[in-house]
Amino acid sequence: MRRWNGWGDESVAYPLHESALAFLAARIGAGTPFADASFDAACATLVPSRLSSAALPGGVHVATDAPTRLRHALGQSLPDWLRLRHGCIGPAPDGVAFPESGEDVRTLLDWASRHGVSVIPYGGGTSVAGHITAQAGPQPVLTVSTARLCRLLNLDAVAQLATFEAGVSGPDLEAQLRAHGHVLGHYPQSFEYSTLGGWIATRSSGQQSLRYGRIEALFAGGVVETPRGTLDIPAFPASSAGLDLRELVLGSEGRLGIVTQATVRIAPTPAYEAFHAVFFPDWDSGIAAARALAQTRAGLSLLRLSNAAETVTMLALAGHRRLVGLLDRWLRLRGCGEGRCMLLLGASGADGPARAALRTALMVCRQHRGVHVGRKLGEKWRQGRFRNVYLRNAAWQHGYAIDTVETALDWPRVTAAMAALETAAAAALGAHAEAVHAYTHLSHLYPQGASVYSTFVWRLAADFDTDMARWRALKGAVSAAIVAHGGTISHQHGVGIDHAPYLAAEKGEQGIAAIRAVLRHFDPDGLLNPGKMVGDAP
Amino acid sequence: MRRWNGWGDESVAYPLHESALAFLAARIGAGTPFADASFDAACATLVPSRLSSAALPGGVHVATDAPTRLRHALGQSLPDWLRLRHGCIGPAPDGVAFPESGEDVRTLLDWASRHGVSVIPYGGGTSVAGHITAQAGPQPVLTVSTARLCRLLNLDAVAQLATFEAGVSGPDLEAQLRAHGHVLGHYPQSFEYSTLGGWIATRSSGQQSLRYGRIEALFAGGVVETPRGTLDIPAFPASSAGLDLRELVLGSEGRLGIVTQATVRIAPTPAYEAFHAVFFPDWDSGIAAARALAQTRAGLSLLRLSNAAETVTMLALAGHRRLVGLLDRWLRLRGCGEGRCMLLLGASGADGPARAALRTALMVCRQHRGVHVGRKLGEKWRQGRFRNVYLRNAAWQHGYAIDTVETALDWPRVTAAMAALETAAAAALGAHAEAVHAYTHLSHLYPQGASVYSTFVWRLAADFDTDMARWRALKGAVSAAIVAHGGTISHQHGVGIDHAPYLAAEKGEQGIAAIRAVLRHFDPDGLLNPGKMVGDAP
Repeated sequence: MRRWNGWGDESVAYPLHESALAFLAARIGAGTPFADASFDAACATLVPSRLSSAALPGGVHVATDAPTRLRHALGQSLPDWLRLRHGCIGPAPDGVAFPESGEDVRTLLDWASRHGVSVIPYGGGTSVAGHITAQAGPQPVLTVSTARLCRLLNLDAVAQLATFEAGVSGPDLEAQLRAHGHVLGHYPQSFEYSTLGGWIATRSSGQQSLRYGRIEALFAGGVVETPRGTLDIPAFPASSAGLDLRELVLGSEGRLGIVTQATVRIAPTPAYEAFHAVFFPDWDSGIAAARALAQTRAGLSLLRLSNAAETVTMLALAGHRRLVGLLDRWLRLRGCGEGRCMLLLGASGADGPARAALRTALMVCRQHRGVHVGRKLGEKWRQGRFRNVYLRNAAWQHGYAIDTVETALDWPRVTAAMAALETAAAAALGAHAEAVHAYTHLSHLYPQGASVYSTFVWRLAADFDTDMARWRALKGAVSAAIVAHGGTISHQHGVGIDHAPYLAAEKGEQGIAAIRAVLRHFDPDGLLNPGKMVGDAP
Repeated sequence: MRRWNGWGDESVAYPLHESALAFLAARIGAGTPFADASFDAACATLVPSRLSSAALPGGVHVATDAPTRLRHALGQSLPDWLRLRHGCIGPAPDGVAFPESGEDVRTLLDWASRHGVSVIPYGGGTSVAGHITAQAGPQPVLTVSTARLCRLLNLDAVAQLATFEAGVSGPDLEAQLRAHGHVLGHYPQSFEYSTLGGWIATRSSGQQSLRYGRIEALFAGGVVETPRGTLDIPAFPASSAGLDLRELVLGSEGRLGIVTQATVRIAPTPAYEAFHAVFFPDWDSGIAAARALAQTRAGLSLLRLSNAAETVTMLALAGHRRLVGLLDRWLRLRGCGEGRCMLLLGASGADGPARAALRTALMVCRQHRGVHVGRKLGEKWRQGRFRNVYLRNAAWQHGYAIDTVETALDWPRVTAAMAALETAAAAALGAHAEAVHAYTHLSHLYPQGASVYSTFVWRLAADFDTDMARWRALKGAVSAAIVAHGGTISHQHGVGIDHAPYLAAEKGEQGIAAIRAVLRHFDPDGLLNPGKMVGDAP
C-alpha cells in the first residue's frame, strides 16, 4: 500500500547501512529519530468537511471521509512531509472526486462553478512544490483525482502516436505501450506515481529527455476541461498556424483546467540500451566533457554528471564497502583521487547507432581525461533510478531531512551557480547552528546549458516549527541564489506554492500579467488551484 | 535593386528554356504574357497618406511618400502579386517607419496608441499569406519596418547563443555568425529577405530543420515591445516555471507586439555537409523510405521527397536535356521509370557522424528499392535552394501564375491528402475552364508525419478580376481539402489573411477565444495588425 506520509510503497525499503550513517554523522552530526504522528491522529486534526452535507454533483463519486481527504491533502515537498510526519496537516480538501470520464470532469467543473467551490486537480500526488496543497480560505475545496482516467484510447503505430486518458501513471502508461512494442520514454524520478496529465501541467522532464525530449516535445495534443468549456487540441506533426494551444496548457499547473486526454509521441521499444560510468579527475574536466557531448548532439539518451560531493556520497550510500574500496584504489591509480566526478552516460535505440553513439562518447570522455569503468555502475543506476527517492524515508527514520532544488542555466553560469547553491544552504542552516550535507549533479544537458540539481541533507529537530524554520531558511537562501545567478526557478519541478515568490524575477511584470490574463480567460472566477504558480492578482 | 512587384533582386533571372515552356504548354496550354503595370502607375493609384500632415512621432524616421508606401504595401502572396502586377494596389499603409532601436519602436507604439493608428510590423516583406497587407478602414495605418534593426548584439560561444536585433535578414544574420565560426541553420526559402523577427512571429521552419529545429527550438528569448509594455523573455536552456512566454510570441503574427531583439541557439559551422539524391520506382516505396528515415531519427539535416509529378517537373525545368536524358535512361535500367520519385537527403555536422548518418540512410533507401545517383543533383539543389523562388518571375513573364500551399499531417494521412490537394486544384480551375499543373513534395519530415507542399501552375488571364477569381477558387478548394484531411492550415507559411478563415477548424471555438484573449491582453485597443491570423472578435 502507498505510504500516507512519505514516498512510495510501504513494502519498499532503502536500508541505510552503518557506514552510510557514519558518513552522514561525520558531516552533519548524528540524527535523532522521533516518532511520527499516526494516521488516525493526523485524520483527527482535519476540520469537518464543508461538502459532506452539501448537494454533491450527481453521478460522480466524491469522498468526504477524513482518510481519503488526508491521503489527497499534500504532496511530497518538504513542508508537506513536515506537516504529515508532525501531524500538523492544516487545510485539507473538503472532498475528493474520482471522475471516470471527461464528461465526469465537465460535470464537476460545472458544479464547482455553480457552487463557488475551488478545485485542485490531482494526478499522482508527487508534487515537490506544493501544487496540490489546499489553501486556507472561505471557499470549500474539492480535489479532483484523475486516478480512474487511465485507459489507452488509441495507438497509431504508423504515426507513432498514442492517446491516453491523462490520469494514467508512468508504469501503467509504459506497460500499456510495451504490450504494443512501444515506449514513451518519459522517466521523471516520480515515475512510479506521477501521471501523464501531471507531467503536462508541470512541464515535466524525464531522465532520458536527451533522447525522447521533454514533455513539451512528447505532448502532441489533447483535451482539457476548463471552466469556460472544453479545449480540444489536435495533434499535428508541426504547425505554424498562429499560437500553439498546447503551450497554454503546458505548465498551467491546474490553474486553467484539467487535462483529461493526451496524445503523446511514442517510439519503438529500443533494441539496445546501455548505461556506462566514466570518472573524471575533477569537476572542470567532467563538465568540459559533458558540455562537449551535449553540444555535439552525440545521440545519447542520458548524461548525468555528479560533482565531487555527490560522487563521494553515492559511493558511501551504496554499501558494498569492499567493492567501493577496490574501485577507489583503481581510480586513484588512474589519476582520479579526491575531487573525482562521475558521469553517467546512456544510449538507447537501434543497435548500430546506439553502440556507435556510445563509442564516440567514450572517446570524447577519454579526450577529457575520463576513466571509463564499464557498465556496472550504470546498470546499478538504472536499477535504482526510481528507488533513490526512497532514501528520503530511510533518512527520516534516522532523524535526517532531505530536500532538493533544481534550476537550469547557460553553461558559463553552471559552476558558479552550483557552488552558490551549496554555499547558500550551508550559510542558511549555519545561522540555525546546523550543518548541511550538500551535493549536486547536472541532470539534463542541452547545447545551451544544463540543469543543476542539488540535494541537501540536514538534521530534523523533532519539532514542527523549528523544522519549518530551518527549511524556510534553506529554501529561501537557495532560491535567492538561483535568481541571483540567472537560473530559472525550476527546470523540472514546476512552481506550485514554494517557487511562486520567485517567478516574477524571470517572467517580469509583463510576463506575470500575461500569464494571469490567460488563466483568467479560462477560469474567470479563479476556481482552479488558487494561489499556485502565479500569485492571484491583487 | 529589389523587385517592387515580384520576388528578389532585379539582376537575378531564372531563365525558362524552350523545353520547359513546351512542358508547361503541353500540360496547361500556352501562356499569354501581358504588360505589368509600371511602378509610377501603381504609385499613382495610392490614396493620399492620412499621416503626411499629422504630427508624426519625434525622432523616428517615418516616410509618407508613395514609392516607400507602395514598396511596403504588399507581400508575396498570389493576391499580392496580382495587385502589384495589375496595378490594383488597394489599401496601402499611410506611412512607413524605420526605427533604429527598441526605444524607437516603443516610441512608435506609444504614439500609435495615443493617436489610434494601426500598426503593421514589417520584416522582410516575404509573407505569402497576407500578413503585411493593410486592411481598408477608418484608422490610419503605419507600417513599421525593422530593416534598421539588424545588429548582432552579443555572441556567447560557450552557451552557443547569439542575440540579434530582430530585423536582421537571413543572409545578414548568417554572415555575422559565420565571421565567428557559427551558423543558426535556419533556411526558409524566403531566406534571402525574411528576418529573424518575422521567422519568430510566423513560426517559420527552415529547409534543414531536421537538424537545427524549427524556429520554436532556436528562439531562446528576446524583447517584444507591446502596447501594454515591454516583454523581456530570458533565455534559459529549459524551464518548467509555468507558461513559456516565448510561446505567446511565436506565431503571434504581429498582433501583440514587435519583436525587437531575439536570442537564438547557434551551432558551430558544420565541418561536413553533403546532399545526395536517391530515386525510388514509385511513391509508395519513396514514402516508406522517408518515414523510416524520419522515425529512426537518422541524424540527417535534410529529407525532401518529391512525388512523381514534381520529379518530372524538376527535371524538365532544369534544362540540360542531354544530361537529363542520360539520367532517365539509366534510371529506367535500374527499375525507376514512369512514376519515379526523387528523395533528397543531406547530412551536416562533424565529419564522422555526418558521413555515418549518410551511409546508414543510403542503406535504408536501398532496402526500399532506392537508386542512389550521387551528390550531383543534391549539390544542384543546394545551389538553387534560394533561387527556385525566382521561377515565379520567369513563369509570370510567360503568362503563368505559380502558387503553393502547404500543410502537415500524420503519416497515415499524407498520401491521400496530397492527392486530394492536387485533385481539388484541378477541379477548381476546371470549373473556370483552365487546367492546372500540380506537383508536391514532403518538405519537413517528423516521426509523426510530414509537411505536404504543393505547387500549382496555371495560366493568367491578363485581367485582375478573372485572375483573382481563379486564385480564390483554387485557394478555397485546396484549403478545404487540407481541413477535410485533418491537416493544419499551415506548417510553415503562417495564417495571415489567406488562412484565417480556416483557423477555427483546428483551434476550435475555445482555442480561438483563448488566442483572442492573449492578443487583447497585450493590445487592448486592437492596434496591431488587425484582421490577421484570427479574425477580430465580433
